Amino acid sequence: VRTLPPIFNAPRLSTSSCDPVRRIEITDELGTRRAIYIPAERALTVFMDGRELVTLMTLGASPELLVLGFLCNQRLIASAAAVEAISVDWHLGAAQVTRRASTGIGAAEPQRIVAGVSGQGSVYARMRAQMNAIRFPSATEARIRASTLRQLLDTMRQHDSIHRQARSVHSGALFQEDSLLVSVEDVSRHNALDTIRGWMALHGIQGGNKILFTTGRLTGEMVIKAAQSGIPIVVSRNGVSTMGYDVAEKLGMSLFGRAVGRRFHCYVGSERFDADG
Amino acid sequence: VRTLPPIFNAPRLSTSSCDPVRRIEITDELGTRRAIYIPAERALTVFMDGRELVTLMTLGASPELLVLGFLCNQRLIASAAAVEAISVDWHLGAAQVTRRASTGIGAAEPQRIVAGVSGQGSVYARMRAQMNAIRFPSATEARIRASTLRQLLDTMRQHDSIHRQARSVHSGALFQEDSLLVSVEDVSRHNALDTIRGWMALHGIQGGNKILFTTGRLTGEMVIKAAQSGIPIVVSRNGVSTMGYDVAEKLGMSLFGRAVGRRFHCYVGSERFDADG
Repeated sequence: VRTLPPIFNAPRLSTSSCDPVRRIEITDELGTRRAIYIPAERALTVFMDGRELVTLMTLGASPELLVLGFLCNQRLIASAAAVEAISVDWHLGAAQVTRRASTGIGAAEPQRIVAGVSGQGSVYARMRAQMNAIRFPSATEARIRASTLRQLLDTMRQHDSIHRQARSVHSGALFQEDSLLVSVEDVSRHNALDTIRGWMALHGIQGGNKILFTTGRLTGEMVIKAAQSGIPIVVSRNGVSTMGYDVAEKLGMSLFGRAVGRRFHCYVGSERFDADG
Repeated sequence: VRTLPPIFNAPRLSTSSCDPVRRIEITDELGTRRAIYIPAERALTVFMDGRELVTLMTLGASPELLVLGFLCNQRLIASAAAVEAISVDWHLGAAQVTRRASTGIGAAEPQRIVAGVSGQGSVYARMRAQMNAIRFPSATEARIRASTLRQLLDTMRQHDSIHRQARSVHSGALFQEDSLLVSVEDVSRHNALDTIRGWMALHGIQGGNKILFTTGRLTGEMVIKAAQSGIPIVVSRNGVSTMGYDVAEKLGMSLFGRAVGRRFHCYVGSERFDADG
């Protein structure tokens, strides 16, 4: 949403967004034909320096930022500056990532990453060892009021345009106080967080004073992605799993969920929360 | 749900289910503390013949069937008889899969599978080439009435016990007409379908005269998993993506979704559907 200057030495990115919905004819329970819209899921195969890495399923609204954030969250690159260019070609269904020659410090080598069948699982396994290194601002510095949280939820109800038209997509968004910085819709809750991470990396945005919103469930890997983005406060329309809860508790994060109307839960990290009462 | 004899030469399976929920204390919007239940997500790392394959995140209610079905859906094994034993140890968070010596016919070698970071993406890539080989019963032989579909939805409302207690989980189930054969809840819609595939493989159940139910969205990979299980009719409480739609259309499957109250959509394959009207 906010237009910001990219970091010095930012990667060159193509601008290959495409139509996020398709009109189809359905048959309803009475046998009547009518038109609806459905989300347009596409396969995007990521190649890094010529090597095939992964196939992501995406709406394709911001594929370059998705790929950039995916590489960051998988720790395949140390920063956006490690990437020379990301070029997406929808005819080929391919994203070509070129790394700069002099990079790699702090980043894992691809062969270490491409170890599991499930990328989400592999994030978790590698993240566990690194969790002790993550530091967030204190509960005095980074906190949220019930009124701010409600304002944020109200704002998000205005920003789910694809969901309103076609449903079956997830939203993710980044806030500073109640001010929306960027919002993303995609077929996967993971893609939405990866795209936000890509936006942060491109613009050099730190997460310590931010709030992350998602419509998806706060499973272990979702909370780990928030932690990797440096964001201590996460709000979901949905619930939490034990693994998400445990990661947040261990790292000193705050998780909110089950936000319906004016009600919500603070699952963990209530020391960062100022309630109404 | 149904107790059936396993196939001849079935794998030996441990019986390592565990508690699917945990009680936690939350803070609500007024600052009041109270107890709720959340789903218990666990990491289960799968080793096949001693080699690490993947880490799955699961509730852990039927981990052996999940692993068996995962191996089938990833085409790492040609049938359940290819597996000697699956042993799950929750203290280690590990599932040890031992294959029989004389197997491998028709199955891909692990190293070909473990090529992408995202397992879901890799299913899709490998499946595309094999889609032409899938044959379903004709629309005369395999079809569904609106009344059967409603009975199925009513039955499922009785079988989401973890969802009712803790929410934030997905259901999957297998039906023959309006008769429930097996139902599964897990943190991932993919896990639920993998577990059903494992149950089918263990008992030698064919999919041609079955109906698959899921609470999850019918994305491309979900529809591919149904197709790999040989099931021509899929019903979701949720919606469909273009890729799920395209796969079903290409293969001659029927997809139903947006089932709310007595209403629903037939997205594609209405030649298998007998409407009310």
